[in-house]
Amino acid sequence: MAEKTASAKTAITPTRTEDYPEWYQQAVKASDLAEISPVRGCMVIKPWGYAIWENMQRALDAMFKATGHKNAYFPLLIPMSFLQKEAAHVEGFAKECAVVTHHRLQAGADGKLSPASPLEEPLVVRPTSETIIGAMFAKWVQSYRDLPLLINQWANVLRWEMRTRLFLRTTEFLWQEGHTVHATEQEAREETRRMLDVYADFAQNHMAMPVIKGEKTDAERFPGAVATFCIEAMMQDRKALQSGTSHFLGRNFARASEIKFLDANGREDYAWTTSWGVSTRLIGAMVMTHGDDDGIIVPPRLAPAHMVILPVIMKDVSREDVLEYCRSLAAELRAVSYHGRPIEVEIDAREGRGGDKVWNWVRKGVPVRIEIGPRDIAAGAVFFARRDRPHREKTSMPRAEFTARACEILDDIQKSLFERALALREKHTVRIDTKDDFYRFFTPANPDKPEIHGGFALCHWSGEADVEAQVTADLGVSIRCIPQDAPEEDGRCVISGKPSRRRVIFAKSY
Amino acid sequence: MAEKTASAKTAITPTRTEDYPEWYQQAVKASDLAEISPVRGCMVIKPWGYAIWENMQRALDAMFKATGHKNAYFPLLIPMSFLQKEAAHVEGFAKECAVVTHHRLQAGADGKLSPASPLEEPLVVRPTSETIIGAMFAKWVQSYRDLPLLINQWANVLRWEMRTRLFLRTTEFLWQEGHTVHATEQEAREETRRMLDVYADFAQNHMAMPVIKGEKTDAERFPGAVATFCIEAMMQDRKALQSGTSHFLGRNFARASEIKFLDANGREDYAWTTSWGVSTRLIGAMVMTHGDDDGIIVPPRLAPAHMVILPVIMKDVSREDVLEYCRSLAAELRAVSYHGRPIEVEIDAREGRGGDKVWNWVRKGVPVRIEIGPRDIAAGAVFFARRDRPHREKTSMPRAEFTARACEILDDIQKSLFERALALREKHTVRIDTKDDFYRFFTPANPDKPEIHGGFALCHWSGEADVEAQVTADLGVSIRCIPQDAPEEDGRCVISGKPSRRRVIFAKSY
Repeated sequence: MAEKTASAKTAITPTRTEDYPEWYQQAVKASDLAEISPVRGCMVIKPWGYAIWENMQRALDAMFKATGHKNAYFPLLIPMSFLQKEAAHVEGFAKECAVVTHHRLQAGADGKLSPASPLEEPLVVRPTSETIIGAMFAKWVQSYRDLPLLINQWANVLRWEMRTRLFLRTTEFLWQEGHTVHATEQEAREETRRMLDVYADFAQNHMAMPVIKGEKTDAERFPGAVATFCIEAMMQDRKALQSGTSHFLGRNFARASEIKFLDANGREDYAWTTSWGVSTRLIGAMVMTHGDDDGIIVPPRLAPAHMVILPVIMKDVSREDVLEYCRSLAAELRAVSYHGRPIEVEIDAREGRGGDKVWNWVRKGVPVRIEIGPRDIAAGAVFFARRDRPHREKTSMPRAEFTARACEILDDIQKSLFERALALREKHTVRIDTKDDFYRFFTPANPDKPEIHGGFALCHWSGEADVEAQVTADLGVSIRCIPQDAPEEDGRCVISGKPSRRRVIFAKSY
Repeated sequence: MAEKTASAKTAITPTRTEDYPEWYQQAVKASDLAEISPVRGCMVIKPWGYAIWENMQRALDAMFKATGHKNAYFPLLIPMSFLQKEAAHVEGFAKECAVVTHHRLQAGADGKLSPASPLEEPLVVRPTSETIIGAMFAKWVQSYRDLPLLINQWANVLRWEMRTRLFLRTTEFLWQEGHTVHATEQEAREETRRMLDVYADFAQNHMAMPVIKGEKTDAERFPGAVATFCIEAMMQDRKALQSGTSHFLGRNFARASEIKFLDANGREDYAWTTSWGVSTRLIGAMVMTHGDDDGIIVPPRLAPAHMVILPVIMKDVSREDVLEYCRSLAAELRAVSYHGRPIEVEIDAREGRGGDKVWNWVRKGVPVRIEIGPRDIAAGAVFFARRDRPHREKTSMPRAEFTARACEILDDIQKSLFERALALREKHTVRIDTKDDFYRFFTPANPDKPEIHGGFALCHWSGEADVEAQVTADLGVSIRCIPQDAPEEDGRCVISGKPSRRRVIFAKSY
């Protein structure tokens, strides 16, 4: 791993402006979040990355439970015939399914293994669980008294991807998938919106990532859904990242899985279902929303360690005295509750060059870095740096004041990260009304050099699929969503000129 | 689901003595823990079962973190060639591996799907992760400074089983697998024992399940391990259930995966590794340790709901007054902390017959059942039943006293469950010194009727594999473990008569 040296200007090479995609890979690597595995397209989530995922899980799980959902667990493997029950669904997922065809390995005469004992019916490793969960729901739901049925599953899923990228697009990923059943269309639609609101709340208040809530167009809808809603965030290269989706499934999957119920009048009918999910992709979103040229920045609400204390050991001072000050400071901070958990403090007393250790924690994005040396001890002070500020900007504060203000400092970092991300999005969100301006906006000045350009284009669109297909083919741009709160206004489609009633968001995306 | 009626003597049919295996299936079903899925050998863990698993996870995870371990996540799929690196390991698992051979489904002319796009190398769905994690550890470990490396993974695994049983033996199950690397044999052996102690602590203090710690014989050792240690519990049919294992892997897997390090003197050598795991099988252990003929009993430390309040609504009393009393009682109880989490209280105010609701919660094993009617409100009292006592035994207690003593009552239930299980084990653990007595002990009186018999036989054994093979063939009995704290004593093998230095535990097992 490249240590920052006097000659390098930043801890991560290349910088974001030099080569954004490569900066992303290097930032993920340098922060020890994850790495590629020997299994094509699959990643290993390392302890620092997994601990961030655990914090995401804890917060989301509490929000799901507060809205009445319970967790359960369904099989990893899905019979091939189940997938086929919903036509659009199988069409959408068949191309990326890992298929289990045998249930034994056997050694040949040469000692080499090969698959043996073929299955009667191949099984697919779940790419998503609507069909297998639907088969169970059909048994569980008999009467309106069984509704609503509100279930969530934390699980791994597999989608065979040809071009993968750590967290953003991997063959296996971790996620949660909510699956609910309702007696009426209205209730199911309300559930779809409620969970979209939960995701937006989580993104903005825990991840410090501003998002736009909206509905997907036909081209981007979940296979088998009636309507797909999403939260979309702008990354620092101005591309959109879909960060969570909530699907109103109508009665499509209820029909496919035979989920029927008797209503209060004894009449049998198909139920209404929804599904919604977020994944480890959110960790990629966090990296690209907040990271800088020195590494990633973890928002305090997600941080496995809120603060790290680095003892500065000098030759003429007792190592034990310094460590003792660090330990008692850590104990004081850990006694403080920050949004329901103790302030998590690491003391990095390992051997090694002080500079290397500092840069290790900068790259990992710990919100507050504290350096304690003899001078700080003599003054009863805490010398610290905030990861959202330039790394040279350090402050000394009396110890009692620092402990008293620890939560305020963390909240202020959380807020500043959100505001910075929001300012970036606002700066690069533009209203565009002509086709020429549209094409210019989405064309890099020099196509040979990877370059940050474009942004969110708020444009009129009349609803024609052709227009979306054309800009996707020409520019790699798609409609990210029809924003939920877009005001109605008369206009003409930016590409076709046909009458339109509101603006949608066009952007390049991950 | 069969409701208990006046004619039935118990909520579960058959009873434990009538047909223990069938009682188990019915108890799991009636308590809504889990059910079989349409996927052969795979179960669906329902919300009540999954919430118990979450409580197990929370407690174990805290214990793993307190002993210095960090969580990470590794790929679900393992290249076939990786499994082959350790000879005993592949021998042990090849027969039960689900194999992914294709990464796409395609529809034929008849519209039917079939697997397409064969993989160059088949991938196995992990039956355990030593080999894939070993491949990563080989990259992560370079020097003695990187050691010890202490990692845990929460994951699903697949082992193709021909005869499955909910929780006890399923094709897919959930578990945790710890994997650690050490510089010295002694450190690795200490780690193996430390984690066995963690498991025993968890079993006894959280599950209220007494266990015996010991070492497995060659016949029962983990494929590839140098030594396997285990905790063994006695179920109510007197069979043993292996409830957790901790393996000292020597340098077998380090050699297979090339995990080498430079020691402080710059000398390169293979490292020493361990692995250890417990699974959703523990839920089966809980059912069979504590359940009675009215359903399961969940120990308070594991209970998703510690208490349920059943409002008794009469025609001449305001429903709202009763509910108000229930809600304020629940709020008081929830304000009490029981071993680090609030006392969890459910109010079951659903419509329906009171008796059905009572039996629903009895079957689910909620530790304390509270019934609140007009008389209790008038008296300012709480009328409650403990699940560890006969269902008709109910107590009235002044409300303030009940709230003040709530934790004490829960702890007392926890203790009584442990003591009852311990008494059963002690009653059915016998020292046997002759072959005749041994065969009599393990032979049911009437072989046609499934019957509870046998127990733990503490017998001398000289270490001969033949003896173990013979009693397994004759009686279905195996050596469960060589107990850790067995005193050395002179004796003669109960079967072969050869000299022996200590007693081991023979038993039938799951």
